[in-house]
Amino acid sequence: MKILRTLLRGAGQVMFQGSWWTGLMFLIGIFWGSYATGNPAVGWGALLGLVASTAAGWLLNENPSDGEQGLWGFNGILVGCAFPTFISPDSWLMWVSIVFFAMLSTWVRRGFNNVMAPWKVNSFTFPFVFLTWIFLLAARMFDSLHPAGLSTPALESSFDYSLDCSFVSLVIYWLKGVAQVFLVDSWITGVWFLVGLALCNKWAAIWAGIASAVALGLAILFQTNPHDIANGLFGFSPVLTGIALGMTFYKVNWRSALWALAGIAATFFIQAGMDVLMAPWGIPTLTAPFCVATWLFLLPLFRFTDPHPDHSNWKSKDS
Amino acid sequence: MKILRTLLRGAGQVMFQGSWWTGLMFLIGIFWGSYATGNPAVGWGALLGLVASTAAGWLLNENPSDGEQGLWGFNGILVGCAFPTFISPDSWLMWVSIVFFAMLSTWVRRGFNNVMAPWKVNSFTFPFVFLTWIFLLAARMFDSLHPAGLSTPALESSFDYSLDCSFVSLVIYWLKGVAQVFLVDSWITGVWFLVGLALCNKWAAIWAGIASAVALGLAILFQTNPHDIANGLFGFSPVLTGIALGMTFYKVNWRSALWALAGIAATFFIQAGMDVLMAPWGIPTLTAPFCVATWLFLLPLFRFTDPHPDHSNWKSKDS
Amino acid sequence: MKILRTLLRGAGQVMFQGSWWTGLMFLIGIFWGSYATGNPAVGWGALLGLVASTAAGWLLNENPSDGEQGLWGFNGILVGCAFPTFISPDSWLMWVSIVFFAMLSTWVRRGFNNVMAPWKVNSFTFPFVFLTWIFLLAARMFDSLHPAGLSTPALESSFDYSLDCSFVSLVIYWLKGVAQVFLVDSWITGVWFLVGLALCNKWAAIWAGIASAVALGLAILFQTNPHDIANGLFGFSPVLTGIALGMTFYKVNWRSALWALAGIAATFFIQAGMDVLMAPWGIPTLTAPFCVATWLFLLPLFRFTDPHPDHSNWKSKDS
Repeated sequence: MKILRTLLRGAGQVMFQGSWWTGLMFLIGIFWGSYATGNPAVGWGALLGLVASTAAGWLLNENPSDGEQGLWGFNGILVGCAFPTFISPDSWLMWVSIVFFAMLSTWVRRGFNNVMAPWKVNSFTFPFVFLTWIFLLAARMFDSLHPAGLSTPALESSFDYSLDCSFVSLVIYWLKGVAQVFLVDSWITGVWFLVGLALCNKWAAIWAGIASAVALGLAILFQTNPHDIANGLFGFSPVLTGIALGMTFYKVNWRSALWALAGIAATFFIQAGMDVLMAPWGIPTLTAPFCVATWLFLLPLFRFTDPHPDHSNWKSKDS
Repeated sequence: MKILRTLLRGAGQVMFQGSWWTGLMFLIGIFWGSYATGNPAVGWGALLGLVASTAAGWLLNENPSDGEQGLWGFNGILVGCAFPTFISPDSWLMWVSIVFFAMLSTWVRRGFNNVMAPWKVNSFTFPFVFLTWIFLLAARMFDSLHPAGLSTPALESSFDYSLDCSFVSLVIYWLKGVAQVFLVDSWITGVWFLVGLALCNKWAAIWAGIASAVALGLAILFQTNPHDIANGLFGFSPVLTGIALGMTFYKVNWRSALWALAGIAATFFIQAGMDVLMAPWGIPTLTAPFCVATWLFLLPLFRFTDPHPDHSNWKSKDS
Repeated sequence: MKILRTLLRGAGQVMFQGSWWTGLMFLIGIFWGSYATGNPAVGWGALLGLVASTAAGWLLNENPSDGEQGLWGFNGILVGCAFPTFISPDSWLMWVSIVFFAMLSTWVRRGFNNVMAPWKVNSFTFPFVFLTWIFLLAARMFDSLHPAGLSTPALESSFDYSLDCSFVSLVIYWLKGVAQVFLVDSWITGVWFLVGLALCNKWAAIWAGIASAVALGLAILFQTNPHDIANGLFGFSPVLTGIALGMTFYKVNWRSALWALAGIAATFFIQAGMDVLMAPWGIPTLTAPFCVATWLFLLPLFRFTDPHPDHSNWKSKDS
């Protein structure tokens, strides 16, 4: 049971919630979405990555309190979601790679956190991002692995800006923005995730909702790629930035709320910029825009409240 | 009046001169050049970015002595020069973006400086470079913004090497190298900038002149893109490196002069390398070659004089 | 004689061996390979780079004990190997550039080591990698320099996976993996290098051999580019990672052996990923995959033995 709770907290920590109830809702949402969109390997990959990365923490004798809070597992579960989303699961090498890279994510996280410790920031989901970029780039050179769902490398991508802006559509885009945190393209999964967040902390759910809405509004205002808007691809990084700045690293108040809104807007621009940056390889940005934006807003070390927040690790809010 | 002087020093600090007289000459040069080249939005953008970034410093209660030296404004004024140079000013969203990104530059500078403080180096103009890269990349995905003056993305660019090397042409290239520090393509602006530098410190003007000349010579020796040579695009980063290494972070003497010359040569190679690096996106290098080269020459922490220079912030030379 | 031994140790330190006997074997292997493959400029460039970078250390009054261990020379010798490999040696500007960039590598190494010191890691061969990237990118813009042996920039490279897997061929690929550490495409050179390693420390030779074999096996298992496999291009970075993790920064034991094997596998994936990453410029990865992988495996600061290894500099094993 303790192991099970540790694993579930690992799912919850993707959105900064060290609660196994939240993690359970997230896993349900992932499995629902993966079966609903016809790619069940995403659900099973998530489970495999979660177990492998958590096991790596034990094997390497890392600080067990980190593990119990779920901090070993959140990069691994994302590795497990991403690999079958972009690489066809018909090769056993893909599954072996999930295990290896999920385990890698546990000590790469430790290394990155060591690097960032002097500035009191955390590597967040960047170990997952960095390792998945390596794997997806490498996979383009492997005849044994077959890309599925990666864009075609291109120098410029053009699009016709035409978006269905009916109220129901907008709500679906908004919910998909939340679901895409785990790379799931299903608005029902977004509901599961919001419920999971609310179970742990109402402000987490509120900031996730605000962030997805603000990013959606900016994407429409600046008229970006309508396909990406409709699939929630402008929402997931702002959702994480919103939870991080709005209620995790700063206490909830009016000044930190303005700060979080500026951070959400910055995340939107970084998302668009990185989409263009990575187009020549046809590789997704994953949650890098969230990482970059949140670092930019934590590194100045502004304090809007006392005591000064310690950014080097987030506190478990488990019950 | 105090506010006005703070703003003008912000213009001066782009070339490390915390003098409001210097800043005034720079602003005159920018406005002259922007009207002369038919794009007055550059001048007004510069003013808007300068005001917005300086205001951000006050709003965030940053250390006021920094602000009085003009250190809040120099990234913002460059943001304001760059956006209308590369994005058509016909959209109000471009102007709103100048305000947002200029404000961002103030706290991104603070964050970057926190990161670099342990090695006694400064982020220089890199906050401007980093944020403008994000915006220009993002703008390629925005139907609401229209690139103007950005290159076409390409894997390789070929050119015929044929350059007019008459004495008058060479002087014009040399002066444009100074003017392009603020992205202005006018040799008369280069004269204004040299006068502004000399008003504050004769060595600043001398090193700016030496650097633009050395870079021009190397560009002709290695036969790089003649269009870039003729528009001063190999000069502006070396100019900044020359001022930084030749008289700002080291005392003027023969050993530091050799060091600065090596730094200017390194900046030339980094400029050419980054031009090729960024060709697939058609995005300019901005002053990144200066930042990279100057970091490379400050990080070894060599001391050619006593006392050891403190690189973490440059001293105001205001009168 | 002391100068000669210092220079030879510089050659040896490319593979972490501060022994002048090892360096002598390496130099013989380089000259053999450069004449055997019809490009003698590589051998003479290596010598020139070695001398220039070591001289830079003296000129700058760096800590002489570093120099005597050969730590000034190993980046310079690699610069001298790489420039004539990728740029036609028919221009005198190429030779001047070797001198300038080899000298640069000495203080860029000092700067990078200053940056990395807080985490007890070293810049390894990254000064060489970084500076050679700059030069090769810049050279594409220089009419005065002619690329020779650089790939054509391309967004995607396709290949037919068909590899001669006879035992003799596999042995040749395996030995070329060792030889390519100095960019030499000759299996006989690989023998010279293994002999040189064994002269200094048998474990260095053993780990070099294991690493090249493991990387070769993974490259065949994942079916990567057969041309690269056959020329040892998947071997050289893992060889360096194997020596670094297997016997330089950790004492030889079973736990560190498992760690080194994981590091070798990670280097293989990073090699493939970076090959794709750099394809749009047609620029080689050089030894960057080794640097990145070894950093990733040192930064967590795991200790498998007491006393904790000091990663900030490797100890000379000279006799």
